[in-house]
Amino acid sequence: MADPAPAKPMDGTDIDAMAERLRAGDRAALARAITLVESRRQDHQQRAHALLQAVLPDTGKAFRVGITGVPGVGKSTTIDMLGANLTAAGRKVAVLAVDPSSTRSGGSILGDKTRMARLAVDPDAFIRPSPSAGTLGGVAAKTRESMLLCEAAGFDVVLVETVGIGQSETAVSEMVDFFLVLMLPGAGDELQGIKKGILEIADMIAVNKADGEGRKRAEAAAADYRAALNILAPRDPNWTPPVITVSGRANENLDGLWQQIETHREKMTRLGTFQDRRRTQQVSWMWSMLEDRMMASLKNNPATAERLPELEKAVREGKVSASFAVDEISGLMKL
Amino acid sequence: MADPAPAKPMDGTDIDAMAERLRAGDRAALARAITLVESRRQDHQQRAHALLQAVLPDTGKAFRVGITGVPGVGKSTTIDMLGANLTAAGRKVAVLAVDPSSTRSGGSILGDKTRMARLAVDPDAFIRPSPSAGTLGGVAAKTRESMLLCEAAGFDVVLVETVGIGQSETAVSEMVDFFLVLMLPGAGDELQGIKKGILEIADMIAVNKADGEGRKRAEAAAADYRAALNILAPRDPNWTPPVITVSGRANENLDGLWQQIETHREKMTRLGTFQDRRRTQQVSWMWSMLEDRMMASLKNNPATAERLPELEKAVREGKVSASFAVDEISGLMKL
Repeated sequence: MADPAPAKPMDGTDIDAMAERLRAGDRAALARAITLVESRRQDHQQRAHALLQAVLPDTGKAFRVGITGVPGVGKSTTIDMLGANLTAAGRKVAVLAVDPSSTRSGGSILGDKTRMARLAVDPDAFIRPSPSAGTLGGVAAKTRESMLLCEAAGFDVVLVETVGIGQSETAVSEMVDFFLVLMLPGAGDELQGIKKGILEIADMIAVNKADGEGRKRAEAAAADYRAALNILAPRDPNWTPPVITVSGRANENLDGLWQQIETHREKMTRLGTFQDRRRTQQVSWMWSMLEDRMMASLKNNPATAERLPELEKAVREGKVSASFAVDEISGLMKL
Repeated sequence: MADPAPAKPMDGTDIDAMAERLRAGDRAALARAITLVESRRQDHQQRAHALLQAVLPDTGKAFRVGITGVPGVGKSTTIDMLGANLTAAGRKVAVLAVDPSSTRSGGSILGDKTRMARLAVDPDAFIRPSPSAGTLGGVAAKTRESMLLCEAAGFDVVLVETVGIGQSETAVSEMVDFFLVLMLPGAGDELQGIKKGILEIADMIAVNKADGEGRKRAEAAAADYRAALNILAPRDPNWTPPVITVSGRANENLDGLWQQIETHREKMTRLGTFQDRRRTQQVSWMWSMLEDRMMASLKNNPATAERLPELEKAVREGKVSASFAVDEISGLMKL
């Protein structure tokens, strides 16, 4: 009688089976995998990371698109309609969200799936609300990992919605290939100001609600934004962010909107900057996670935990110079 | 016979004497103190930080103004003339620089003092080229500390010049009260594009070379920039960055330029945001220095020094997921 084969550790079998089901496009498995990623339990985190590593070769194929806009601009309606267009054209669409305020408010954007009535019942769509993990860095990291899981499960379009709170737009722009800003129509004095920080990261501006009586106003607003953008130096010499008008509700020009995203990808792929951007994002992400861990270890270290808030207060009040405070902490940490 | 008084440690005496000479406005002492701040020697750093702590109560009184603009915009000429106006009005003016490229090029902006012919021979002015300390963080930290020493030595205006390389403008904006962007004249197709990232931090835009035949072009450019800025949401609801025209060479409207800086300070002081901004800058600076030290300790740690570049490469090539790499490094660091 031969020796029994050494038992494969439960974890490994578990992860392999989960990866298998993910690759088969099993939606329940995807939902469970994201729950694993979002868990704060140490053992869950380890399994989540092993799962991500296992499915890594199956990731990276989706269009990753970030979408932002103020409340009332029609984000949900537009995403719902755009997503439905895409699934009708044979694509599989995942919608994720980054909402760092969801921890405080208890709610979350996308929390109410009825906001996207079409996609909520579409077998080729997957909707997931924002993780409520505390810091923006934490929320963004989990959304990023969820995005990879969606890709492994065969979703070839991932739309990441964000409310423009704090640095959430920047965090989302750092995980997507294309960042879309939705604006309200209005011209002259009513014109909605573009947040300056947004200009650095916008790959396109779409003025929404360009239907019926709103069409004219939307087009006037688009012309004004276009003129303003002309005075600014382009971030990427190969891509001047277009300013278009759309109507999410009336499904007007959403095909044109998507065409711009395809054109951007084709052009950037041809120039080699598409893969460059993704590689740079990966590496930056690694460093920012390392930074988060290092700073957490500083804040949680018993040697410094008590002294840090005191020193921060003294620096704020101008009683201790910043460099002096840093020297003291470095000494306590034996850096 | 009484016991001799315990000898004060040399360092202490040394620091006290240096602080004393600084407070008396001794320029040679100021130059030496900045050299101490810029030194990379551990013992020099400790003495520099003790000195900063000693003179801390004497700092904070200056107007801290950052100035940027592309090469050829006339930064030196404008700073030279503005500075001369200010010393003529009884102020003491220090000019510092942040140029992270100076390490590579061997040179440095402000390296050639003859670029500021007036201030170079003005007893009420002090010019110091950029420290060449490697990283932008390092250069900025040293300039910031030098700024505090200048304040302790009685300089009540500190102008920090920067070339717009990488994030140097942001670094400078985080150490000053007011950030000024100089632009070239030109209108229509010739109009110089404003770097998008600059808009977030500019407190004023001044179109330079508005003299003689250039005046009309400069005014047209200013009108175009003003129109563009109107379409953007203001960063601070209490301050809409003015767009003005000046001529550094012909000393035209530099008084108007300075008046805006005074108005900004008065208004922000009244609203309480002036001190808020400084306090926030102090605390952010402490954290960013701590972050730099922590990340340096990660990169220099023998446990991780070898593995980090390998993992970074694997993440860049998509062979290892970022979270997996972070787990491994955290394990090695026992975080």
